[in-house]
Amino acid sequence: MPPAPATESGPPFLREIAWNADGLVPAIVQDAASSEVLMMAWMDEASLRKTLETGLAHFYSRSRRRGWLKGETSGHVQHVESIHVDCDADVLLVKARQVGGACHEGYRSCFFRRVSDDGRLEVVGELVFDAESVYHGGGEAPAPPGPA
Amino acid sequence: MPPAPATESGPPFLREIAWNADGLVPAIVQDAASSEVLMMAWMDEASLRKTLETGLAHFYSRSRRRGWLKGETSGHVQHVESIHVDCDADVLLVKARQVGGACHEGYRSCFFRRVSDDGRLEVVGELVFDAESVYHGGGEAPAPPGPA
Repeated sequence: MPPAPATESGPPFLREIAWNADGLVPAIVQDAASSEVLMMAWMDEASLRKTLETGLAHFYSRSRRRGWLKGETSGHVQHVESIHVDCDADVLLVKARQVGGACHEGYRSCFFRRVSDDGRLEVVGELVFDAESVYHGGGEAPAPPGPA
Repeated sequence: MPPAPATESGPPFLREIAWNADGLVPAIVQDAASSEVLMMAWMDEASLRKTLETGLAHFYSRSRRRGWLKGETSGHVQHVESIHVDCDADVLLVKARQVGGACHEGYRSCFFRRVSDDGRLEVVGELVFDAESVYHGGGEAPAPPGPA
């Protein structure tokens, strides 16, 4: 998507977002090509603005208490094609072209486990990269950047 | 999906879910046929159990502080085909067959608005029923059951 207008206050829709008490909204990321749901993470206003400015999905990590670029360690960035807002304006849906895999465990989607008929979790997702070598092989990052 | 085994403790995967401080997890609902993302709402353990037992999506309303059956007023229920769990086990993805529309405003999906090039919200969703007559026509319900 094209960069948002560079006004002082930012794109008008930002004023309509119903941020939660922590100033965050859940952002669902869906593969723009396959329609597979890839992950859910949280955005604050700064990471949403960064997403709009750069066209790459940025999020806010509640555990690390900072914004992050999806793919900053792995290179598995998400090129944003469109952003959708739900009826209550408290959830975002981001349609994006995913490079590599969305999940820090090496799967294309974070939702790689399905509840089986006997009530257990079975892996049904597609492993698309080796998480160990991507996140620890080069010694670049101390911990894999999970979506939480 | 078939009913979960009726054990005292319930299906084993329930013990793996990372409920938040309020005992909830976000549940994304995706149309099993079209792959359209329909809505996001919250589930507590009771509503997840109800979903497993009945095959119909149940949620927990934070504003009304009670569980609810999706479609209890409108008849627009969601027949669950599968439930997926993300890598951190703190988000669910529910694939379901949607009857009617998921959104209480009458749209097929709650994500019926897209951020336009000029930073405003434009309606791009499909209106599939008349919300006024469904929620207020019969005098059945005092307020439309939004997902929050």
